[in-house]
Amino acid sequence: MKKVGIIMGSDSDLPIIKKATDILKSLDIPFEVHILSAHRTPVEAADFAKNARENGFGVMIAAAGMAAHLAGAVAANTTLPVIDIPCKSSVFDGMDALLSTVQMPTGIPVATVAVNGGANAALLAAQIIAVEDKELADKLNKKRADDAQKVLEKDANVMNMLDA
Amino acid sequence: MKKVGIIMGSDSDLPIIKKATDILKSLDIPFEVHILSAHRTPVEAADFAKNARENGFGVMIAAAGMAAHLAGAVAANTTLPVIDIPCKSSVFDGMDALLSTVQMPTGIPVATVAVNGGANAALLAAQIIAVEDKELADKLNKKRADDAQKVLEKDANVMNMLDA
Amino acid sequence: MKKVGIIMGSDSDLPIIKKATDILKSLDIPFEVHILSAHRTPVEAADFAKNARENGFGVMIAAAGMAAHLAGAVAANTTLPVIDIPCKSSVFDGMDALLSTVQMPTGIPVATVAVNGGANAALLAAQIIAVEDKELADKLNKKRADDAQKVLEKDANVMNMLDA
Amino acid sequence: MKKVGIIMGSDSDLPIIKKATDILKSLDIPFEVHILSAHRTPVEAADFAKNARENGFGVMIAAAGMAAHLAGAVAANTTLPVIDIPCKSSVFDGMDALLSTVQMPTGIPVATVAVNGGANAALLAAQIIAVEDKELADKLNKKRADDAQKVLEKDANVMNMLDA
Amino acid sequence: MKKVGIIMGSDSDLPIIKKATDILKSLDIPFEVHILSAHRTPVEAADFAKNARENGFGVMIAAAGMAAHLAGAVAANTTLPVIDIPCKSSVFDGMDALLSTVQMPTGIPVATVAVNGGANAALLAAQIIAVEDKELADKLNKKRADDAQKVLEKDANVMNMLDA
Amino acid sequence: MKKVGIIMGSDSDLPIIKKATDILKSLDIPFEVHILSAHRTPVEAADFAKNARENGFGVMIAAAGMAAHLAGAVAANTTLPVIDIPCKSSVFDGMDALLSTVQMPTGIPVATVAVNGGANAALLAAQIIAVEDKELADKLNKKRADDAQKVLEKDANVMNMLDA
Amino acid sequence: MKKVGIIMGSDSDLPIIKKATDILKSLDIPFEVHILSAHRTPVEAADFAKNARENGFGVMIAAAGMAAHLAGAVAANTTLPVIDIPCKSSVFDGMDALLSTVQMPTGIPVATVAVNGGANAALLAAQIIAVEDKELADKLNKKRADDAQKVLEKDANVMNMLDA
Amino acid sequence: MKKVGIIMGSDSDLPIIKKATDILKSLDIPFEVHILSAHRTPVEAADFAKNARENGFGVMIAAAGMAAHLAGAVAANTTLPVIDIPCKSSVFDGMDALLSTVQMPTGIPVATVAVNGGANAALLAAQIIAVEDKELADKLNKKRADDAQKVLEKDANVMNMLDA
Repeated sequence: MKKVGIIMGSDSDLPIIKKATDILKSLDIPFEVHILSAHRTPVEAADFAKNARENGFGVMIAAAGMAAHLAGAVAANTTLPVIDIPCKSSVFDGMDALLSTVQMPTGIPVATVAVNGGANAALLAAQIIAVEDKELADKLNKKRADDAQKVLEKDANVMNMLDA
Repeated sequence: MKKVGIIMGSDSDLPIIKKATDILKSLDIPFEVHILSAHRTPVEAADFAKNARENGFGVMIAAAGMAAHLAGAVAANTTLPVIDIPCKSSVFDGMDALLSTVQMPTGIPVATVAVNGGANAALLAAQIIAVEDKELADKLNKKRADDAQKVLEKDANVMNMLDA
Repeated sequence: MKKVGIIMGSDSDLPIIKKATDILKSLDIPFEVHILSAHRTPVEAADFAKNARENGFGVMIAAAGMAAHLAGAVAANTTLPVIDIPCKSSVFDGMDALLSTVQMPTGIPVATVAVNGGANAALLAAQIIAVEDKELADKLNKKRADDAQKVLEKDANVMNMLDA
Repeated sequence: MKKVGIIMGSDSDLPIIKKATDILKSLDIPFEVHILSAHRTPVEAADFAKNARENGFGVMIAAAGMAAHLAGAVAANTTLPVIDIPCKSSVFDGMDALLSTVQMPTGIPVATVAVNGGANAALLAAQIIAVEDKELADKLNKKRADDAQKVLEKDANVMNMLDA
Repeated sequence: MKKVGIIMGSDSDLPIIKKATDILKSLDIPFEVHILSAHRTPVEAADFAKNARENGFGVMIAAAGMAAHLAGAVAANTTLPVIDIPCKSSVFDGMDALLSTVQMPTGIPVATVAVNGGANAALLAAQIIAVEDKELADKLNKKRADDAQKVLEKDANVMNMLDA
Repeated sequence: MKKVGIIMGSDSDLPIIKKATDILKSLDIPFEVHILSAHRTPVEAADFAKNARENGFGVMIAAAGMAAHLAGAVAANTTLPVIDIPCKSSVFDGMDALLSTVQMPTGIPVATVAVNGGANAALLAAQIIAVEDKELADKLNKKRADDAQKVLEKDANVMNMLDA
Repeated sequence: MKKVGIIMGSDSDLPIIKKATDILKSLDIPFEVHILSAHRTPVEAADFAKNARENGFGVMIAAAGMAAHLAGAVAANTTLPVIDIPCKSSVFDGMDALLSTVQMPTGIPVATVAVNGGANAALLAAQIIAVEDKELADKLNKKRADDAQKVLEKDANVMNMLDA
Repeated sequence: MKKVGIIMGSDSDLPIIKKATDILKSLDIPFEVHILSAHRTPVEAADFAKNARENGFGVMIAAAGMAAHLAGAVAANTTLPVIDIPCKSSVFDGMDALLSTVQMPTGIPVATVAVNGGANAALLAAQIIAVEDKELADKLNKKRADDAQKVLEKDANVMNMLDA
């Protein structure tokens, strides 16, 4: 199976990445995690992206805050699908990171998910790999059904919760 | 090859979708286009999504403006990757459509591209299909090289442009 | 009397819904509460909306955060009036949920109240039922008079409060 | 049948109100239109609201731009449901009018629709009246079906539109 | 001397009003404080404004949050200068209150100060009264000089502060 | 009568200032207009402010766009009331100018009106002068009544306007 | 004299760059202009930055719109001062480009000027070179005096302009 | 070596300035710190700027929040490069300070860095001085290499961090 390559711009983003790797582990999807900065280590970040396809990666995930160039820098160096997690930093609630990645210019797409959306980034990566992997698709469908079931169980119990 | 399923919420979004289908045609990727509304035709939109995988689709693209629920409604009914194009409407420059799709809750990811970003949505769809399609990946790499060449040609001519 | 149907997208919205049900109870308006997600349980949410009128509901209230599609999904499946409470989540102070619901396209209105405005959603539902229910209208007018009286009592005491 | 009372703050809002009255006429709902300003004619605006219920009104619609207090001023003087149309003025794309009405304090709800959303305000008013009017509810359901049919007809023709 | 009339929409705004009354006391300017709501007690709020000039008031200060109509409601009922303090509430950092008051329509001006700017509202009121009151103008000029002196004293000590 | 001192930062703001001077002329209030920049002619701008009170000015109006420091620079050099008109420039709809003036720090208030609100700035200046000028107050009250009358005339004609 | 290196991400930014080069020419500052994209030609953009200091450049100016990474990509590859011009594109008035550059992470500063601020970028570059170039500093001071003189001439003529 | 002149508008900005002075000390760059307000001490702030070049300063740094005019007031009085640190205050996350400085009008540039970006302001000042100071440029390059090394060390340890 193709691997998911994950890069975060700073170790302060670890809790967000953890949500992603937890999902990937639960789906038995191989992954590799790096801390590499588009600005502090531009060469290493670019090299990781340039060699990703031949190194067995199928999807890339990048997570960064503020002027979040990491996903764009990765996308500039590979034609693999690149998913971005805009991270909330001390001001602007992540709007800076969101606009810094969702507004990529024509030719270099980045797939942006919600601010701090580590879990959804991993699920999107899984969905991409599952396009040609029926077994993984089945796992994703089962997870969906399980999630729905949890909602319905809460629904059945809602009057108790309201009275609590 | 897996097909790309494209849904727009209104025919006013046709010019944006045209940018997407032009890209897909140039890459010989099969696609199917629909006008279906999450609000006016919720059953048909959901049905298209539910049956998409077995009908040979590999990626879905949705385009909508304002309270843009279309991509979310599609994503709620399939585990295929869903790409959203937030469309600019008469106010807020598409920020309403952007937040309506990028902020999807955990469990149901949507891959959001730039406001009115029809071309990038198609390229992202192509990149997703290319994960397991070396020929298409080669085409994407070639397009990247061509795009770079065009920039360099403009760069070589920039002093003339400035004096014009 | 027609019932008020209340749906929240997640049990994290319970405190906001509690403010609504407290109001409804105080006005002796019957209601039913559900936890149903537009994305995780789209069929159940749509079914509840589709059957609402014949099941004796007169008004629907939906509460959701982030890309808040729940009210829109309900409104797409009924012509009963639908009230939305945009909920504040971890970023953007509820502006994402607000724009995701107030900006509904022509044909499918949603009545939006303030961010986290559970009490006002219930009052609005009561006002809608009271259009043809004089007794309830009298109760609402009395509550208004009581609220005004409380303000005037505080006003009479304001110099003491300032010196406290 | 209860009447819909419509107030606009300025005659510059006439085109938006026209969209509302067109809908009401098509549904045979009686209405009355006024130009009254919360700031320039506060007494007349308040009086219209205070007497609305006994004068046979069932729902109020207010339309105003900028610091849009009109809906709030109406709501402060009646317990009828009040619908607000935030109007776009020369700056801020109607965000000023939206926040001026959607963020009403607890106790005085206003049902806010989209910026410049005259048609949806009228539809919401109709839905409110239809709570206790089966014939009108049937008309609204039929309009929904017609709207859906129009989308499906466009969908059937989409490939022609794309090639045009 | 003309009095300053102060109205707050809710007793939750007391700490902000306290900053205003402290300034007024320090300048020996007479004032009167009320808790009156544009929405809950519209008649009383309007009456206070209508009679303000003849009751010896020279300037009005209003403080409110969310859809902050109080200053506008006061301004609609008097031609005395009205100063607004937009108050921060639970979301949007007071931007809702700011836009609800600064964007008043032509004909009914409101003088808006910073979010939660109780002290500046009082100083502005004092400056207005001081236009025809040389003694008060002298006090304001002295306060300015004192404030400047405090800055210069801190400046003289800044290296110590940095090393602390 | 005290004069109104008007400063604009650039002659591009002339149309906005014209709305202010038209109002002042109609009320027979003397005024003086200057083009002075807080950044390009800081000394002249400061000097005008410093000498304003002794030169017979009672109120200052400043109009500027972008990083609009003009009103703040004037306010820093006088304790006369200073009114700011935030001007819309090529981007951000005047939000930059609005925040640059309304958010003045404690001690140096500026009275901010709506973006491009030249007329209201002049009316506010007139209201300030009218605090101690009964004749001017009467004129302002008469103008209010006239404005209200114009609204009521439009109201009487609204059905014709809707059918036009 | 050190040269100014100017990079724009797209030839659509030429009019903005023209304002910069006009200033530089008027001050006899040597410069070199390139069209290079952080995303389409990342290697060439990085190489230009890496070699800039030894190639005789003293300051870099970058201009880009949307997810504007160009200045950041340049700054990541040189310790020369890098000035960014955020460019307005089809949505968001340049706020996307502004946040994408001004919010650079610690360690890699970018000096951001106003949206579309080509002239000020050039003036800032000139000021940087003038730190150690007294002749250029004199030119800048003279330009300041000339600019002030133009304002004062307009000020002398303002009453005529108002009456025109 | 030219000195860096640092002005903060209030001693509440000291922690941000401390980040700047720490950087300058580590690079052996001389600096001088002042607390001076554009509004409370406009003469002293202007004088410091006017005399800065002849007093041996090469770059100015200003830090202020809210309607942050300090950098603009400094820039209006010198042609030295002026760097602004927009400071976050109690509302708007520093967006008010950011727009108050980055949107400077043509002719008077200010180099704006990130909200609360004290360290980057100092690094930018260092880069400006280093244009003509090879030894300092070498120090800056070495710091860059050290920063990169720290990222790579974290990268080498990332799997341990994730499992922690």
